[in-house]
Amino acid sequence: MISAMSSQTETPRRAAHHADEDRWQTALTSIAPNSILIRGYAVDELMGRLSFADAVYLLLMGELPPPAIGTMLNAVLVSSLDHGVTPPSTLAARNVATSGAPLRDSVAAGILAFGRHHGGDIESCMRFLDRGLTIVRAGRSMQDAAHEIVDGCLQDGRTPPGFGHRFHTRDPRAARLFQMALELELEGEHVRMIRAVERVIDAEEAETGRHLPVNVDGAIAAICADLGFAYDLGNAIFLISRLPGLIAHAHEEAVRQQPMRQIDPKDHQYDGAASRRLPEKRK
Amino acid sequence: MISAMSSQTETPRRAAHHADEDRWQTALTSIAPNSILIRGYAVDELMGRLSFADAVYLLLMGELPPPAIGTMLNAVLVSSLDHGVTPPSTLAARNVATSGAPLRDSVAAGILAFGRHHGGDIESCMRFLDRGLTIVRAGRSMQDAAHEIVDGCLQDGRTPPGFGHRFHTRDPRAARLFQMALELELEGEHVRMIRAVERVIDAEEAETGRHLPVNVDGAIAAICADLGFAYDLGNAIFLISRLPGLIAHAHEEAVRQQPMRQIDPKDHQYDGAASRRLPEKRK
Amino acid sequence: MISAMSSQTETPRRAAHHADEDRWQTALTSIAPNSILIRGYAVDELMGRLSFADAVYLLLMGELPPPAIGTMLNAVLVSSLDHGVTPPSTLAARNVATSGAPLRDSVAAGILAFGRHHGGDIESCMRFLDRGLTIVRAGRSMQDAAHEIVDGCLQDGRTPPGFGHRFHTRDPRAARLFQMALELELEGEHVRMIRAVERVIDAEEAETGRHLPVNVDGAIAAICADLGFAYDLGNAIFLISRLPGLIAHAHEEAVRQQPMRQIDPKDHQYDGAASRRLPEKRK
Amino acid sequence: MISAMSSQTETPRRAAHHADEDRWQTALTSIAPNSILIRGYAVDELMGRLSFADAVYLLLMGELPPPAIGTMLNAVLVSSLDHGVTPPSTLAARNVATSGAPLRDSVAAGILAFGRHHGGDIESCMRFLDRGLTIVRAGRSMQDAAHEIVDGCLQDGRTPPGFGHRFHTRDPRAARLFQMALELELEGEHVRMIRAVERVIDAEEAETGRHLPVNVDGAIAAICADLGFAYDLGNAIFLISRLPGLIAHAHEEAVRQQPMRQIDPKDHQYDGAASRRLPEKRK
Repeated sequence: MISAMSSQTETPRRAAHHADEDRWQTALTSIAPNSILIRGYAVDELMGRLSFADAVYLLLMGELPPPAIGTMLNAVLVSSLDHGVTPPSTLAARNVATSGAPLRDSVAAGILAFGRHHGGDIESCMRFLDRGLTIVRAGRSMQDAAHEIVDGCLQDGRTPPGFGHRFHTRDPRAARLFQMALELELEGEHVRMIRAVERVIDAEEAETGRHLPVNVDGAIAAICADLGFAYDLGNAIFLISRLPGLIAHAHEEAVRQQPMRQIDPKDHQYDGAASRRLPEKRK
Repeated sequence: MISAMSSQTETPRRAAHHADEDRWQTALTSIAPNSILIRGYAVDELMGRLSFADAVYLLLMGELPPPAIGTMLNAVLVSSLDHGVTPPSTLAARNVATSGAPLRDSVAAGILAFGRHHGGDIESCMRFLDRGLTIVRAGRSMQDAAHEIVDGCLQDGRTPPGFGHRFHTRDPRAARLFQMALELELEGEHVRMIRAVERVIDAEEAETGRHLPVNVDGAIAAICADLGFAYDLGNAIFLISRLPGLIAHAHEEAVRQQPMRQIDPKDHQYDGAASRRLPEKRK
Repeated sequence: MISAMSSQTETPRRAAHHADEDRWQTALTSIAPNSILIRGYAVDELMGRLSFADAVYLLLMGELPPPAIGTMLNAVLVSSLDHGVTPPSTLAARNVATSGAPLRDSVAAGILAFGRHHGGDIESCMRFLDRGLTIVRAGRSMQDAAHEIVDGCLQDGRTPPGFGHRFHTRDPRAARLFQMALELELEGEHVRMIRAVERVIDAEEAETGRHLPVNVDGAIAAICADLGFAYDLGNAIFLISRLPGLIAHAHEEAVRQQPMRQIDPKDHQYDGAASRRLPEKRK
Repeated sequence: MISAMSSQTETPRRAAHHADEDRWQTALTSIAPNSILIRGYAVDELMGRLSFADAVYLLLMGELPPPAIGTMLNAVLVSSLDHGVTPPSTLAARNVATSGAPLRDSVAAGILAFGRHHGGDIESCMRFLDRGLTIVRAGRSMQDAAHEIVDGCLQDGRTPPGFGHRFHTRDPRAARLFQMALELELEGEHVRMIRAVERVIDAEEAETGRHLPVNVDGAIAAICADLGFAYDLGNAIFLISRLPGLIAHAHEEAVRQQPMRQIDPKDHQYDGAASRRLPEKRK
């Protein structure tokens, strides 16, 4: 994916540096005086022509995204923008902010709280779906494969990654992402596999006694895997998405609250804008 | 508890909770089962309808951006996406990655390297321009004000924030941002002030012997200030912009290099895509 | 303090490298195959002969500490080892731990919460005391100087750094540190200045209506300043002291609590060892 | 290890709080106005009576260490104090410092670079030795067990954790730690197992063609495991040990170098104290 593309233009440069074999190599961005080329494109030519999501895809994947993928990635990045004050990452960021530390320190602490139960779940789910697809490639049906990987988790007492939520019985972000993948004709084998897993888990709900809806991490995992992202880049997409949320909470803590307070995650009240709909022209 | 209250519905709830005054308050996102409202808008309604940059503006500023501001903010976020392997933030991220730590740890370390000389310069520049505008409001001309704040820096041996670059004598990102602010009719008093400062510094170049071009931090500072961002949110915009760069370098380090290597910032070679132009249809 | 000590042994090395002037220099530790010299001493010779606190002094200050300073520094490092679950740094570390992140991520987040109101106060207090001593050197009395710097804070609505505590009306750690500094004959001008400030604040309590006892940060600041530590190393001493506390809480969170819980700082209970005294032989 | 010790004194407290079952519990430190009890001991009573290393043991393990363990732990903490400018953690810290960020940000970034190849190796080695001891408990000899776990690594192309070093062919810190464990009569089964592994690896050197000396991480791992530390606390001991090194480098970078420089890890020169011996009275 991040391939080392050679090209004719490199030949003269190679000639000039005999010891090139010993140099370490990078394929992301080349810098020269007054010139910044990201994956070969001048950044000032990209500005105003690509959305930020398009540019993220270019940088991480090496090529410009087709329009449908750009639309999908914008939606993925919007999906996890913020989830209120209760996630541990937000509380870590606010606890740093209340000490009087600068905003970037709060944000860094919030990012560190994307452990394997929170954000890191995306990578786990991508691997989980790939285990299912390996079974399919060995000749079994999607449904058999889904059964096998779900039962593998449940027998170990683990919740299948990408399923279950502390607050939601139906995660509105997952539903919207799957709908968009369908409409944009971007559904691939990972989305089909997670839908198969979803049916297996729903069917077993009577037996397990647990309602485990597919969550936004699961939807992001399936879609990012279909788009060809590496495992750790799946988590990274969540990280890009949630960063503004961490920033907004760190800023609000610094601006609205007293320093050195004890932050009780159950004792807050929302006093922001009332529920409202997008104006017609933005739909 | 975390419901999105329209004003009428608050009365009964306040009655139920006598201690509401003691609760701490947040105006960002309200969470209820199967409902996530960001600044009052359902996140699943925003998905597919707002670009990520639009949604960032909504979360940080509280309202939907007019289209011109959305376009501007996308360009600002693209402008600082990556700057190759040499910034200290990128080297901090790569040094963490070479130890075998997970991607989010590399990224957090990179963010910590946005000190006052790197990224943090945006906030300094916003304050610097506001000092100039305070002088203007006291009755002096833009040019006089620019002279005064520039001389204040130079007399203390400091480079005016937002000016000078280690590599570029003309920062192509700054030029493009100012051009877009003009075309989108988003130029405000901070952009006018930084252009006045630019003229003063250029005029004094013969005297100071230093060429100090306006840089991308200066352009972001002026534009974010005109858009009404708080000081620390100016830095935060840079942070959102550069995060994908930190991710790409941490990922590339893990995938392409041996662990525990000594990373020499001068010894690398670009082996990525050759210089290329955007296809006509993306312009 | 970190001086560049030349020595005879360097002469041949300098001869071998013509470009030495261009190399960047470090005076801390020299590494050669099978040899690690910290400030010139073989680390394996230090092991078993210096306490960790002695070795920290050697590394940071460049010379072995006299025994009284070693004793004092051990006490300073013990003083701030832990302060239960309520400091924001501890809560930041626990919120990272509950996400399933590794221990070092929790600890890094905790360190980021040593902002200017928490830990960072030591540096502020060192500067505050030095402002007082500058006044003394200009010919005024200790008491006059203390009055002036205290009033400077109170008039701005700021609490004098190193004074006041959320929980304690008399900080037992500060009292013990001052007692030890006296007994070890390590009291210097910074300790005398903070005692003068203490008397001024006590005398003004009737007027200000606020009881502001000297706290452990103030005591560490005065003692570290008398020992000759640089401002930022004063904060660093606190950081070394509290690190085991952050580790213990991150470990306890991972071992004793469910992942992804909402951590309410007011809802905990201590279930550890009952109050006990040191055995006679350790006194 | 961090056990919930009940005691008579808790009974009245429990009686007072009916909802105690719902509270989350901590066994580390209890705070009351003007009282800080660490594992039941008043911190001001510990100050001046315990070395910092003793106090760390008390906090992490719950009880006072016998004197031999206190001596051993001081030596372990001194062993990894610093390793010059080349470790990735030190370079991460210096890259943050050169951006103008505060010392604690540099230190946090350095800690994040203790990935599984650097510092994190201690936990891997503890698990590796425990795999050997499990084989011994199943009735095999130490030597057989050592052969099996070494071959398990080598067959997978992995270096056995705790062995090999980038710079040293004989790690002087490991040798000194093993000597002290012997003299202090603290050698346990993990030290015996790692010595058995060492003999196996030495014997296979002719075959593998690689010289893999036991390193300081291996020695710390064996000793900490014999002392009863949990796996993640083994890494944590390294973290406490190296923290002053990170601090010293971040401080030196800020004080001696220009900001925003490109840090080449191969281009430095030591200009500190010449090689010297401890004075007789410190031996």
